[in-house]
Amino acid sequence: MTSDRLAEQIRFLVEADKLKNVLRRTLLTDGSRRENSAEHSWHLALTALVLVEYAAGPVNLLHVLKMVTVHDLVEIDADDTFAYDSAGNATRPEREKRAAGRLFGLLPADLCREVRQLWEEFEEQNTPEARLAHAIDRLQPFLQNVATAGGTWRIYNLSREQVLARMDPIRTQLPRLWPMVTAAIEKHFSCRP
Amino acid sequence: MTSDRLAEQIRFLVEADKLKNVLRRTLLTDGSRRENSAEHSWHLALTALVLVEYAAGPVNLLHVLKMVTVHDLVEIDADDTFAYDSAGNATRPEREKRAAGRLFGLLPADLCREVRQLWEEFEEQNTPEARLAHAIDRLQPFLQNVATAGGTWRIYNLSREQVLARMDPIRTQLPRLWPMVTAAIEKHFSCRP
Repeated sequence: MTSDRLAEQIRFLVEADKLKNVLRRTLLTDGSRRENSAEHSWHLALTALVLVEYAAGPVNLLHVLKMVTVHDLVEIDADDTFAYDSAGNATRPEREKRAAGRLFGLLPADLCREVRQLWEEFEEQNTPEARLAHAIDRLQPFLQNVATAGGTWRIYNLSREQVLARMDPIRTQLPRLWPMVTAAIEKHFSCRP
Repeated sequence: MTSDRLAEQIRFLVEADKLKNVLRRTLLTDGSRRENSAEHSWHLALTALVLVEYAAGPVNLLHVLKMVTVHDLVEIDADDTFAYDSAGNATRPEREKRAAGRLFGLLPADLCREVRQLWEEFEEQNTPEARLAHAIDRLQPFLQNVATAGGTWRIYNLSREQVLARMDPIRTQLPRLWPMVTAAIEKHFSCRP
């Protein structure tokens, strides 16, 4: 009754539910718990919708929304790798590549190709859409950190230089937001106890 | 340094974080906890991306993705209203209208209008995009319920007729999925203890 194609699509969508159990380091703005990668991905889509006017150049918003929706799916197998974990980041590409093979491989071939290309485009940063998606992927946890008295900057005792380097995609892709970002970072690192 | 316009957009995006604390009745597929409305909204976007080919007619996917991204924001103030709670649903329109006024009102006027129109379009169901978004909003919890031995159908002791009526948008908007849906409902209600 259900075609093989539809059965594959449904299986993928049910498997994707597991992204709701992948925890990031970032806290919710009320500090109550760590954010998961599914709700984070939703917040990126909303951010793209509301801030696209600040992109450094013209972008295709549909493409950005598709990219942020699928960009973290590999974490279902590869888990979230903390931005400042250098050992974890050394093995991340290989782990995520394996995860992409298994997860996107659940889909029919044409959709597998589309989702894989979206994910690779996000990782490779060679298009305006990928670069904007990346900058938004930095801005959203930045806002959560500001709302939680430094959040992960404070908890993991990061330096001003580490945070500024991490936020750099905002400088180039959302330039009109950069003064707000540097001011908040300056305030945090000048005023912490 | 930060324009009033940007400050309003940022304030809205930070406020939107609260959707991650709004709990739906639906369980995750592993049964471990209730799903929140932010991760649910992400799952709808992914479902739209993967299943748009089954729409009953042509749709603008960008418009669908925007709509599912904003469709539950009003729950930040109005909370999630369980589909089968008739008292709650009697007061829902008024509560959600007030919520829309406050939340979307955080945005600059042009964006407030855009987001409000997307939300109203979703509620009014007068466009192919709104009808598809609605059907996807029924399909996603359906899949979670099937994965959890009936999920909310079982927990709240719903009848076959209640569930079939609730799923009806799938029949009209994703017709090729309807046999799968009715078969799973039939199996659940025939075989439950």
